[in-house]
Parts: sequence; C-alpha cells; structure tokens
Amino acid sequence: MTNRQMSLVGFMQAGNVTVYSGSWRYPSAELGFLSLDYYAKIARTLEEGGFDLVFFDDRLAMPGVYGNSVADAVRYGARPVKLDLTAVLGGVIGATSRIGVGATYSTTYYDPFHVARTFATLDHLSGGRAAWNVVTSVNDSEAQNFGLEKHLGHDERYDRAHEFLEAVTALWDSWEPDALVMDRESGIFADPEKVHEIDFAGKWFKVRGPLTVPRTPQGRPVLLQAGSSGRGREFAAEWADLIFTGDPGIEVARQHYRDQKKRIAAAGRDPDTVKILPMAYAVVGETQAIAEEKERLFLDAYVHPVASLTLLSEVLNYDFGRHGLDDPVTPAMLDASSGIRGLFEGVRRHLGRDDLTVRDLAAHRATLLQGPRFVGTPDRVAGQMREWFDGEACDGFVLAATHLPGAFEEFVRMVVPILREQGVFRSEYTGHTLRDHLGLPK
Amino acid sequence: MTNRQMSLVGFMQAGNVTVYSGSWRYPSAELGFLSLDYYAKIARTLEEGGFDLVFFDDRLAMPGVYGNSVADAVRYGARPVKLDLTAVLGGVIGATSRIGVGATYSTTYYDPFHVARTFATLDHLSGGRAAWNVVTSVNDSEAQNFGLEKHLGHDERYDRAHEFLEAVTALWDSWEPDALVMDRESGIFADPEKVHEIDFAGKWFKVRGPLTVPRTPQGRPVLLQAGSSGRGREFAAEWADLIFTGDPGIEVARQHYRDQKKRIAAAGRDPDTVKILPMAYAVVGETQAIAEEKERLFLDAYVHPVASLTLLSEVLNYDFGRHGLDDPVTPAMLDASSGIRGLFEGVRRHLGRDDLTVRDLAAHRATLLQGPRFVGTPDRVAGQMREWFDGEACDGFVLAATHLPGAFEEFVRMVVPILREQGVFRSEYTGHTLRDHLGLPK
Ligand SMILES: Cc1cc2nc3c(=O)[nH]c(=O)nc-3n(C[C@H](O)[C@H](O)[C@H](O)COP(=O)(O)O)c2cc1C
Ligand SMILES: Cc1cc2nc3c(=O)[nH]c(=O)nc-3n(C[C@H](O)[C@H](O)[C@H](O)COP(=O)(O)O)c2cc1C
Repeated sequence: MTNRQMSLVGFMQAGNVTVYSGSWRYPSAELGFLSLDYYAKIARTLEEGGFDLVFFDDRLAMPGVYGNSVADAVRYGARPVKLDLTAVLGGVIGATSRIGVGATYSTTYYDPFHVARTFATLDHLSGGRAAWNVVTSVNDSEAQNFGLEKHLGHDERYDRAHEFLEAVTALWDSWEPDALVMDRESGIFADPEKVHEIDFAGKWFKVRGPLTVPRTPQGRPVLLQAGSSGRGREFAAEWADLIFTGDPGIEVARQHYRDQKKRIAAAGRDPDTVKILPMAYAVVGETQAIAEEKERLFLDAYVHPVASLTLLSEVLNYDFGRHGLDDPVTPAMLDASSGIRGLFEGVRRHLGRDDLTVRDLAAHRATLLQGPRFVGTPDRVAGQMREWFDGEACDGFVLAATHLPGAFEEFVRMVVPILREQGVFRSEYTGHTLRDHLGLPK
Repeated sequence: MTNRQMSLVGFMQAGNVTVYSGSWRYPSAELGFLSLDYYAKIARTLEEGGFDLVFFDDRLAMPGVYGNSVADAVRYGARPVKLDLTAVLGGVIGATSRIGVGATYSTTYYDPFHVARTFATLDHLSGGRAAWNVVTSVNDSEAQNFGLEKHLGHDERYDRAHEFLEAVTALWDSWEPDALVMDRESGIFADPEKVHEIDFAGKWFKVRGPLTVPRTPQGRPVLLQAGSSGRGREFAAEWADLIFTGDPGIEVARQHYRDQKKRIAAAGRDPDTVKILPMAYAVVGETQAIAEEKERLFLDAYVHPVASLTLLSEVLNYDFGRHGLDDPVTPAMLDASSGIRGLFEGVRRHLGRDDLTVRDLAAHRATLLQGPRFVGTPDRVAGQMREWFDGEACDGFVLAATHLPGAFEEFVRMVVPILREQGVFRSEYTGHTLRDHLGLPK
C-alpha cells in the first residue's frame, strides 16, 4: 500500500456529554457514563473500525464562571461530570487489544513525576498503546479547585508546560531500553549503569528520579497537543506527535496545516512524522434526508441557550451571566476574555454578519466547536473527508460524537468501509503499538 | 450465620516484588508485573477465594537513601518498580465483579481534588468496590521527586492528612445521593439545589468544588489506614474503616487491638464498624515438611543483605550505607532515624538479644515485616489464624505474599476451604459493595 493513509481518532469524554452539550438528551443516547462497560463498548466499536486512537478530553472543574456558580451547569447537564481518566483508561485497555488509548492531563495542575508514571504505566499495561494529550488548562474554575483564585497567564502556562515536558521525558528516558536483566540465579534484577537519576532542576520543578517504571514499549508514549495560539503552535512543533486543530473551514485549515508543518521543520523535526488532525463532526444517514434530519435534531433540539453560554463562559473565562440573551456582543467583551481566541471571529464568519447578540454566540457554540461538520450519505461524508485529506488541509480527523454510542457506530458501519475500499484507510491493524498505527518512529 | 466473620485482604504490590524483596527470585514466581493480565489473574484468584479486598501499596520513589543512590535498589531489585495504581485498578475492576479494590495514595504528594475524583471514579466503575489506603509517605527519597529536599515532619504530615481528608470527604459529599435527575424531556440533568460548592479553606488547601463525579455507590469509598504511632492511631480512629497493623506477636497485637478500639470509641464511633487487620504471611504446604522447606527458601535463599538494607534505609530514612555489615547497631543510629519506629525493638525481641549488628537487621527486615508468619499444613495455618482471630488480637488479616501468584493460589486452594467449613469465612459473596462485604454502614 503506497497510498497516503488517513489517521482516525475518536474524541471521547468521560462524562455525561460529548463536546456537544445536548448529547445526553439525544433520543438514542445511552446514559451509562458512570460504568466501565459504556467506555469499553465504545472503544471496541472504534477498534472494530480500525481507529488509530480513542482519546478522552478533560477539565478539572465543573463550569463555574457563568453567573459565578455551577448551578446552570448542573441543571442543564453542561459538562458537570468529568471522571478520572486513568481509571477509565485502565479499564478500556483491558477491553481492547490494538487501538491506541489517550488521556488529557494538564501541566498546570499535576506534577511531572505523577504524570510520567501514569503514562509509562498505561504504555506497559496496553503493550505500547498510550498517548498523552498535553494541555495547560483554560480557566479560573479549574484554578479554584487547586488553591488559586486565577488561572496562570497564557504564556506562563506554556513556560511551565515546556519545563514539565522536559522533566517527564527525562523520567521516561531514565531507564535505558535494555536495563532489565532479571537473572534469578545471580540475583541481578537490572543494570545500575543503565538506570539514571535525572536530577532535574528548573524554574518550576525539581525531580530526582529515576522513574519507578522501566522503559516502555513505545519508548515514549505518544504526545498529543492542540495549541492554536502562536505560542501553542511553537510548543506543538517542538513536542507533539499528533496535533489537533479546530478550524472552521478548509481554507483556514490549509493555512494552519502549512504554518504548523513549517514550524515543525523549523524546530528541526521531520514534518512527516507529525500528524495534524482537525476536530470534525460526521453526521451520517442512510439517505441525505435522514442525515439532515439528524443534523437538525443535533443542532436545534437539545441545547438550552444558557447551557451553551455556561460552556462558552468557561472557554473564554468570561461571565456571560452578566448579559441578557439579546444584548449585543461588544468589543469590550472580547477584550475582557482570555482563553481560546478567535472563537468570536469564527461565529461572525459563519453567520456572515458583524452584529452578533449573546444568543447568536450561544446558538453556535452549542455545535460549531471550531471544526467542520460533514453531513450526508456515507459516500458524501467520505467525499468531504477526502476533500480535506487530499487537499492537504489535514492528515486525518479527530471525530467528535453528536451522541454516544450511536454516532461512532454509524460512522464505523457506514463510512469506514468506503475509506477502506478507497485504500486511504487500513483494513486491519498491521502493527501493535500506537506508533506503529501512526507510522511514527519509536 | 451468626458467627463473627473474618475479613481477608490480599496485600499486593504493583511492581517486581511483594513486601518481601526476594520474591522475584522465588522459583515459581511469575514476572509479568508490567502486564495487566498478571494483576487481573491474581485479583481473580483472590475473588474466587472470597476475599473482601485486594489492595496495593505504593511508594513515590525508588529507594535512594542507602548510599544516597538508587544503584543497589536497581541491582538487587529492591523495589525499583512501582506502577501507577489507578491504571492498574481500572484494569483489575474490569476483570473482576465482586472483590473490593484498593490503592494507596499519599496525602503529602497529591492534591485533594485529584484524589477525591480518582476514588469516586473507581467506586462508580467498580459498582461500589473502591478503597483508599491513606498514607503520609515515609522518607526523603519521595520528597526529592516533588521538589523538596526533606520529607515533612511526622506530626505535620498528619496535620496535612487530616485537612486533606476533610477536603476529600466534603468533595465526595458535594453531590447529594438523589441529585441526578436525567430527564431528557425537560432537559433537567441534575438538581442544582443538591450539588454544592464546598468552598473549603484550610491551612494547606483551598478547594471550591463541587466534585465532577456524582455521589458514589458506597456513598464514600472505604478508607484504610495503617498509622502505628500515637498520632497515627488517633488519625485512624477518626477516619478509617479498616486499620492495618504490623505487630510481631499476638500479645502486642492484643494490646494494640484493645488500644485502637478504645480510641475509636473515644472518637465517637462504634468500634464494631472498624476492622483491625494485622499484616501476616501464610506459608502453606501439603505437609509440614513442604511448608517448612518453603519457609526456608523464602527466608534464606533470595535476599542479598544489601537489598535488605536498601529497603530498611527507606523505612527508617537512615543511610545504612555508612556502616559495614558487621558494625554494631548503636543508640545513635536509632536517634538519627525517623519513619516507622519500634522496628529495632521488634528485631531485638525476635532474636532475644540486645547486641545487634547491621547484618542482623538486614536478615530480619527481609521477611519479618513486623507481622506474624503462619507456617505449616493448611489445618495448622488455619488454626494459627483462628488463635489470633478468636483471641481478639484482630478481626482478620492482610495477607502478604512470599511470591506471586503462587502464595495466594495456595492459600485460596488449601486454607480458605477450612475457614469456610469452620463458618468463620464466607462461602460466597452475599453483597455487592465492599461495605457490604465488610458489614460496614454506608
Ligand atoms: C480537539 C481538541 C481537544 C482539546 N481538549 C482539551 C482538553 O481536554 N482540556 C483542555 O483544557 N483543553 C483542551 N483543548 C484546548 C487546547 O488545549 C488549547 O488550550 C486550545 O486549543 C487553545 O490553544 P492556545 O492555548 O495555544 O491558545 C482542546 C482543543 C482541541 C482542538
Ligand atoms: C499493611 C501496611 C501497609 C502499608 N502501606 C504503605 C504504603 O503503601 N505506603 C506508605 O507510604 N506507607 C505504608 N505503610 C506505612 C503506614 O502508612 C505508616 O506510615 C506506618 O504504619 C507508621 O505509622 P506512623 O506514621 O503512625 O508512625 C503501611 C503500613 C502497613 C502496616
């Protein structure tokens, strides 16, 4: 097979909703999000579909910026539930054998030793299938669960993240690959010349090491990153194996793709060894009419505007509870919000007008999520994906679900066979580790 | 069944050795400690044996006190490997259905929000089988992986632990039991009147809450504790559901049992709702000769004195690398060491003489571990256990393994049937949660 191969990643949430905050109300959605079987079943579906990876996002707080209260997040189910991901992944690993398994951990609210140990362990237990999505967290709600009033500033977060990664990778490398001896006869367990204290000392962290986990099957677990700011793209260029993006249209995505690949080369790495994957929704139906009716359900039916603003307030770290739904969006709001930038612009572009109200933001935030939405028959969805993939807008996709487990089941049943037939997606796994699936060096 | 029932707990390590540092060299020991199957299989063995709980200990560093280096820990396999326990438990939960599953987490090197979320998640995924062994960590090796030179002082650790537990339990209680509504029609997910920000503010921690995990099946995961100092016993009296002890003989254990039960009553709790379990080894053989030969193997054959001193140096936070093996043990050594106290006394008592050398400490530390060792035919081992149990020295046992998985397989095959026949141990699980197994209130 000499065709360029598409990477497919299932974007999961360990909680009551997908990225789409109305997903729990979708008619056929299952609500078993507190049980292991729920996650195991979805991961097995994606594994049957030959996905490279299933990965889980995370937040370290219930949304609490809107109205300075968690009440609306609780009431409308706007992401009030977020489980511990290592526990979930441990279970998912036992239920699968080939698909990669990834979790989001924040460099702002964890310690390097713990995170290094967690992912090294996951990599061993899974036989080389572990991935870490490196985030710096987004807002004050999270800070307030860890003794702080305010979140760290944007660039300071990335400084800390950089040092965090230096410490973690040094810990992963602290056992050389052939350090284990395990000779019962002589009683030599491992070669002390090949296991190193790291004596890391930076501005934020001091870590003696070594890690208490031998070198892992992948050497290093796979690193995922989704920085979109200039600083974020630099960080991803230096560290990431997979980069997630969230661009609204193919043209913006192409520019982002080119810019990011250039930055990777400038950082001294081979751009072909780093995959860039936009977040996307696929809404598939047996006929175009079914797909469009599903889209309507998904778009219109289930999200209360306040639920939507609750999540938007989190992402922008700005309290929309101060405004009525019909208040105009003002430049002052933009200036006052930190967090993910450019989201306002996306909505403006999407609606094709400048005079937005708070309700407009609410309506679009519910579903848009800065990524493309592919809607239609299986052929049409596959065609749209090919357009992005062949047009050098991406190396594959991070697929978000409108509801679970249905959205992934339908995609695997209807779209994957077409991509396979077209020779752009694997018919079966050929390797064993996640790096094998992605064609990345060890 | 009106008989008082024995509690049995399997004491596990997620690494290359059991508590006994020669265990990896034992002839029939399996060395699959980097795979999930290994832990799943052992947990299933204990579940077949009707054990209440399998729980894992932890350390957050490779032993590095001896000679101020990790070299000997690495060389002799003296606990250089410790995996992430949440990852392991997630897998074990998927492989079992009834046995309780516990992990050790330190209040000194984690945050309350993370630990609360971890155990709440484990409790949901397991359907109410999770337990947390609360420790404060023991030495400078651990401190040095978290930016510190020296470990916190003993009483300061317990102050922090107390506040940590206040924050964690407030987070567990932050969702009332009936807060979830999940009405798709009205779009009400949960009742905001029943989910509370905790606004915890103490000396060490500030946490806003609520937890991002609904009330768990057990209400609160089960708490384990093993404090042996006065301060530790007070802490256990206030917080623990299960208390682990490590007393060398039945008389000391009886005193400890009485003292601890008195402290529980003084803390305003019903002493019958807290179980006290000494750590013990069982070495079982089809005949007395087989058991004694196994004990000899276990005691003599596999532990290099330096491996033993490596671990002893950790527990006492004192560098025995400064002394030769034949140097006498001096009062100055005792004064210089913090950590688990009274261990020296135990060895003196055991050997029946006062003039100890460093080698004596090494020899006994390898296996003794401050708990009783029951050796012999199944009947004899069961009889010794009954003597402790009936004699009000304990409510059951935390069984450590001389090697894995053999030691637990043999115990389940040979000793459990006798305890069942005698009516002091369950023939099958009657409840579903760990609290059910232990007969504890929710
Ligand atoms: C697909 C995708 C998944 C993300 N998952 C998380 C997440 O789980 N937790 C989080 O705090 N941020 C998450 N983010 C946000 C990014 O980490 C990052 O903060 C954001 O893209 C803005 O980039 P910047 O920080 O460089 O401005 C995600 C972003 C994308 C596109
Ligand atoms: C069965 C048992 C298991 C223990 N497991 C751990 C452990 O995993 N990690 C740890 O740091 N300490 C562990 N300890 C040590 C105790 O937490 C505690 O520090 C010790 O019993 C001394 O008590 P003190 O701190 O009150 O002096 C264990 C003790 C016993 C008896």
